[in-house]
Amino acid sequence: MNILLVNDDGIAAPGIAALYEAVRDLGNVDVIAPEGERSAVSHSITLDKPISVRKYIRDGLFEGIAVGGSPADCVKLALNELLDRRPDLVLSGINLGCNSGLNVIYSGTVGAAAEAVFNGIPGVAVSLTTYQDPNWEPAKIFIRKLVQRIAERSIPEGVLLNVNVPNVTDGAEIAGVRITEQGMAQWQEAFQKRTDPKGRTYYWMSGSKKEMPGNETIDDTAIKNNYISVTPVQFNLTAYAEMKEIHALELEY
Amino acid sequence: MNILLVNDDGIAAPGIAALYEAVRDLGNVDVIAPEGERSAVSHSITLDKPISVRKYIRDGLFEGIAVGGSPADCVKLALNELLDRRPDLVLSGINLGCNSGLNVIYSGTVGAAAEAVFNGIPGVAVSLTTYQDPNWEPAKIFIRKLVQRIAERSIPEGVLLNVNVPNVTDGAEIAGVRITEQGMAQWQEAFQKRTDPKGRTYYWMSGSKKEMPGNETIDDTAIKNNYISVTPVQFNLTAYAEMKEIHALELEY
Repeated sequence: MNILLVNDDGIAAPGIAALYEAVRDLGNVDVIAPEGERSAVSHSITLDKPISVRKYIRDGLFEGIAVGGSPADCVKLALNELLDRRPDLVLSGINLGCNSGLNVIYSGTVGAAAEAVFNGIPGVAVSLTTYQDPNWEPAKIFIRKLVQRIAERSIPEGVLLNVNVPNVTDGAEIAGVRITEQGMAQWQEAFQKRTDPKGRTYYWMSGSKKEMPGNETIDDTAIKNNYISVTPVQFNLTAYAEMKEIHALELEY
Repeated sequence: MNILLVNDDGIAAPGIAALYEAVRDLGNVDVIAPEGERSAVSHSITLDKPISVRKYIRDGLFEGIAVGGSPADCVKLALNELLDRRPDLVLSGINLGCNSGLNVIYSGTVGAAAEAVFNGIPGVAVSLTTYQDPNWEPAKIFIRKLVQRIAERSIPEGVLLNVNVPNVTDGAEIAGVRITEQGMAQWQEAFQKRTDPKGRTYYWMSGSKKEMPGNETIDDTAIKNNYISVTPVQFNLTAYAEMKEIHALELEY
């Protein structure tokens, strides 16, 4: 089994090393990831600038390729130029920070795995629900089992698995696995307004997700209850349910 | 009616001026757009860097705000900090280049309009299917009628209208309007491999969309046949149709 690892936290991030350790003996593992952090870049691609590629050695662990572009660029370049062997699976992560609900839209981790799916290759995005004090072990255990399962069976074509693993101190706190839907809770944005040394205004974005009542079929709720959330995700965004209402607008030129 | 204009080609681009001209007398029009080009940045948002804001005067046309961030940042900042009046409608464009099929995923134009939808405001993305010799007039005529129609009736909540207008020499060549689905034609990527002045490898991305057989319910086909394509788009990416197959994987921790 040929496995490509990618992420959006950059090739030097701890999460991709954890991912490598989890799957290194399950197949031929390649690592091609952004040279630095590319969080919240979504499905960005680099069309109007050159994209650099450099050998990157993670001492004692792997030799990979650092790409001067986005997570999606990494997978496009990997499949078209950089890899001698076509991956059977693309794993993206392990991301620091939850990628559930509308975050799926903004996530570079998901954006990279999506490129695999667009090319007919199973793609899995894996995130850990914390920004600090990560315990990678439960995610490593689960992703290993998941990869073995995908090798035995398969994922439906065109579908990405978006995995979020709760950050727990002790793996025994994981309640199990839930197949979930993407929640649609809005973000409550907040901006800090500041003044730069030249007296000009700038802003820092922050914000938090609004709580939504939900049951364990929703990703955020499952995660809050210490379940590993697995959401099958697809990329035909057509609003089929609202087609009739749009036809009723009788739009004309 | 309060209308916010945004784009991904930058506040100095011709398309946003065309959009302004099309709707200027239909309500109170604000313009808040990226300071420079931000094509193919998808739903990128700026979390770890400050975002600058500057007054921008387009001589004889509008006074707007140039934002040192992504199209999605522009709408978030507009709604939370920069606007005194909440928009009733957000128009994104007019983009140079088609945003149909999987391009919907990569498009900053669509990403900006999506932010409106996430905040309960109708969002429309408008693109012209060319990179050169644009004829803005058909798009201006249609968008004007569309805005009037939205003012009379409404768009279902959570749905964005993704509009692509064929670039024609004479407006009479427009065949009409089609409500369409997002096509799923793959891209055939291509990369040019080059060497920088220091002897290091870099790549330029290019590529083209693979042709897919399609009828006029598919965005790309409608556009090719000179129809204005209007695709209703939503952002719950859950692959409901494949849920059963994912449950059948019997994933365990």
